[in-house]
Amino acid sequence: MKPEKLYHQISKKASFLCVGLDTELSRIPSHLQKAKDPIFEFNRQIIEATHSYAVAYKPNLAFYEKLGPKGWDSLAKTLEVIPEDIFVIADAKRGDIGNTSRLYAKTFFETFHFDAVTIAPYMGKDSVSPFLEFEDKWVFLLALTSNPGSQDFQYHTDSGVPLYQSVLEKAQIWEKEYPGHLGFVVGATRAESLQEIRNIAPQSFLLVPGVGAQGGDLHSVCQYGKTELGGLLINSSRGIIYAGGDSEDFADKAGQAAKQLQEAMSAYF
Amino acid sequence: MKPEKLYHQISKKASFLCVGLDTELSRIPSHLQKAKDPIFEFNRQIIEATHSYAVAYKPNLAFYEKLGPKGWDSLAKTLEVIPEDIFVIADAKRGDIGNTSRLYAKTFFETFHFDAVTIAPYMGKDSVSPFLEFEDKWVFLLALTSNPGSQDFQYHTDSGVPLYQSVLEKAQIWEKEYPGHLGFVVGATRAESLQEIRNIAPQSFLLVPGVGAQGGDLHSVCQYGKTELGGLLINSSRGIIYAGGDSEDFADKAGQAAKQLQEAMSAYF
Repeated sequence: MKPEKLYHQISKKASFLCVGLDTELSRIPSHLQKAKDPIFEFNRQIIEATHSYAVAYKPNLAFYEKLGPKGWDSLAKTLEVIPEDIFVIADAKRGDIGNTSRLYAKTFFETFHFDAVTIAPYMGKDSVSPFLEFEDKWVFLLALTSNPGSQDFQYHTDSGVPLYQSVLEKAQIWEKEYPGHLGFVVGATRAESLQEIRNIAPQSFLLVPGVGAQGGDLHSVCQYGKTELGGLLINSSRGIIYAGGDSEDFADKAGQAAKQLQEAMSAYF
Repeated sequence: MKPEKLYHQISKKASFLCVGLDTELSRIPSHLQKAKDPIFEFNRQIIEATHSYAVAYKPNLAFYEKLGPKGWDSLAKTLEVIPEDIFVIADAKRGDIGNTSRLYAKTFFETFHFDAVTIAPYMGKDSVSPFLEFEDKWVFLLALTSNPGSQDFQYHTDSGVPLYQSVLEKAQIWEKEYPGHLGFVVGATRAESLQEIRNIAPQSFLLVPGVGAQGGDLHSVCQYGKTELGGLLINSSRGIIYAGGDSEDFADKAGQAAKQLQEAMSAYF
C-alpha cells in the first residue's frame, strides 16, 4: 500500500486503530466452536464489526502457525475478508540472512498479500532490505518493545546511544532508499520514550502495541507519537477481540470496544 | 533430547555435522519434480544418504513457509523420516513477548517435535525462556552471525562489551536455570572470534552455519569451537544437499559430500 493511501484512511476515519487478530481457539465463544473453521468465522465477524473504526489489522503469526497447515488456511481466508483499503501487517518478527529473508518476504507479500511485516533488527541491514525491495510493501522494525526483556539488550549503550536508538538511527539511513516504507515497533508502555524516538525518526510510522492489556496509556501515545499526517498505528488485540468474552454478541462487543478507542483517538485530529 | 544423548552421537560418529535442509523446489532435480511431494521426496533421499555422517538436521522454516500449508505438510513428513537418535533444529529465528513465544514453542516442540529452535535475542529473557521451559528442548540464541549486516548492531559496544558478547554473558546466567539447553549461533566466517566466545561460554553448544557456501573455514571452527565433550554443531546446507546438481544420483553425491565433511571433522576426535 502506498503511504498516501494509509494516511488518507487515518485521516478519513480519525483513527490510528490497528486491531490485533491474535485469535486463540480456546478463547473463541462456545457457539462458534462447531463452525467449520472457528478461527476464520471468529475473525470474519470481528472484522465485520470493527472495520469502520480500524485502519489496520495485525494477525500475529504465532497464533496461526500453532495450528499447523490448518492455521495457515484460516489466516489466508481471514486476509480475503479484510476490506481492500485497510492495511494488513504480518506480526512475524522474522529476520534472517539475505536469501532467506527474501523467501520470508515472498511468503508474506506474494503468497499472503500482506502490506507489511514486523522484523527483528539483530542481523542488520541485509536481513531487512529484502523485505523493502517489494514495491509498496512495508517493514516495521522492532525498536523498543513493551516486555520486561526489553531491558536486557535494547538499552545496551554505545557512546551514549542505547541500542534501540541505534536501530532507529541506522534504519533512518536505510529508509532513504525506500522512502515511507520503514516504520518502527515501539511499545506503549514506553510512552515516555516516544518524544525521544520522534526526535530521531520524526516522520516514520510507529506501530505501538500494548495499549490496553499491556497497560499502555493511549493519551501519551497519541500526544507524543502522532505526526502532522498521522504516522501512528496503535494496536489493541485482546482488549477488542475478546471484549465480549464467551457471549453470542462477541462481535458487537468488539465493535463497541473498537469504537470507543477510535473516539478517544479522534480527539487528536 | 538430553545433552548426553547428543554428546554420545557426536562421539560415536566422530562428527559435528548438521545438514541444513534448505530445500527449494526450483533446485530439486528434474526427475523428482513430478513426485507427489517433491520437497519431501528430495529430503527423504537426502536424509537416507547422509544420516550416517550427520548428528543433526536443520530445516530453515522460511523454505517451507514459502509454500503455504503444503510446505508445512512436507516439513512434517520430513521430520518423520529423520532417525529418532538424530537432533533436529527448527531454524526459525523467532522471538516475541512471553505468551506469544510460548505459542511458537508449542508449535515447534509439540506440533512438530523439534529438539531445538533458533531464537533472535533482541526482546530479551522473557522472549527466550518460554522455549526453555519444555523438558529436553533446546534454544540456539543468535550471537554473532555470518552475514554482512552482523556489523550493524552485534558490535554495538557498551563499556567495552559488544552486544553479541553481552548476549552470551546474559544467556550464560539464564542457562543456569536450564543447564545444557541453551546454545548459540556463531557464524563460521567469524572463526577468529570463536576463541573469545569460548572464553565466555566454555561449555555451551555452538551451532555454526556458514562452512562451505558462506566461506567459513572448517579447520579453525573445529580447533577453536569444540569442547572436551563435543559442544559443536557445524551446519552445511547447499554444499551438501545440492552437491549433485540436477543429476539422478543427487542423493549419492550429497552422501559423499557429507562423508567428506565428517571425515575432515573426525581428525578432531
